[in-house]
Amino acid sequence: MSAPRRAGRRRGNSGTREAILAAARRRFAELGYDRTTMRGLALEAGVDAALVSHFYGSKRRLFTIAVDLPFEPTEVLRHLLAGPRDTVGDRLARFLLHILETDEDRQRITGLIRAAVADEGVARRVRDTVTRELLLPLAEGMSVPDAPLRAALVWSQIVGLVTVGHTVVSELLAGRSPEILIGAIGPVFQHCLTAPLQRSGPYG
Amino acid sequence: MSAPRRAGRRRGNSGTREAILAAARRRFAELGYDRTTMRGLALEAGVDAALVSHFYGSKRRLFTIAVDLPFEPTEVLRHLLAGPRDTVGDRLARFLLHILETDEDRQRITGLIRAAVADEGVARRVRDTVTRELLLPLAEGMSVPDAPLRAALVWSQIVGLVTVGHTVVSELLAGRSPEILIGAIGPVFQHCLTAPLQRSGPYG
Repeated sequence: MSAPRRAGRRRGNSGTREAILAAARRRFAELGYDRTTMRGLALEAGVDAALVSHFYGSKRRLFTIAVDLPFEPTEVLRHLLAGPRDTVGDRLARFLLHILETDEDRQRITGLIRAAVADEGVARRVRDTVTRELLLPLAEGMSVPDAPLRAALVWSQIVGLVTVGHTVVSELLAGRSPEILIGAIGPVFQHCLTAPLQRSGPYG
Repeated sequence: MSAPRRAGRRRGNSGTREAILAAARRRFAELGYDRTTMRGLALEAGVDAALVSHFYGSKRRLFTIAVDLPFEPTEVLRHLLAGPRDTVGDRLARFLLHILETDEDRQRITGLIRAAVADEGVARRVRDTVTRELLLPLAEGMSVPDAPLRAALVWSQIVGLVTVGHTVVSELLAGRSPEILIGAIGPVFQHCLTAPLQRSGPYG
């Protein structure tokens, strides 16, 4: 697909495409999927709305391209499975917080997950991808029963943290060590991934 | 505020108001805050859109009235604080799942939390209410440090479970005991509410 040549445009095609993608990432993250309009993000990118459609087609298609996973699942999976099984929750918590503390990555994953909460179709696609490529192989690597259920529970934790938890918790931590957050979240992931799920405590 | 009298209207004012509220709850839960329109829910309730505005003003105001907490925080708090401290996570998990398994309650809390994820203003109001009336007093009742941080972590778990976790996990559990879910979630709440948050494990 080649872009139309326009008089007075200072950026080349690839610069324009990149500007549109960057604007899309910011707006999907800040406004969510529903409120992001092709017109609004064209304005933010400083291009014609027609050019956005020309390059990327529909809003849903642009979303798919702009807001992909901000990491390479295979590499992350290898890293998470590399250490001892009883510290996998800690590694997963560190990995997630690392993403949330990097501006562009945070925009991507926040856009992805806010869109998933708003739109059933997007939700299924995002969950399927993350589950298939990362969470299910991770849970299966633990050699305990109920891998699909564990993957779903971890996904639920991640959605909560990305959509509301991280902002609130960061405010509350203001100035204190982020290790507190790792210490709070790591064991939660660990529990979901490796603990016996059937209750066996003294209370019932 | 009194409703205009209209020829041919079969329901009284209170019936009409109730029909609007019920339609609003269903639509906010199913479509989220952004996609719910006054016109759409008037159609569903079988009334004029003008009547919805007349009774409830803006969409935001209708949201506030229709989608309130599906429980009485004071009573829930008393119940949660009544038993032993080391089983509070189990009680909270049971309470949440009970809400999610009751149709109208699930619609209310799902609508509330999906709207909170989509809209920053709604998010702050919902979180402030739930935190002030339930989660913060609950965390304070545990007599451990960092009550506000713990309340935020529990809120994060609840958002993840209500927005995506419960549906997925219920599908995966199909036909198996819901006790598995209590066993998976209870210890997560317990950890957030009472465990030491600073990491002190053997790994760094």
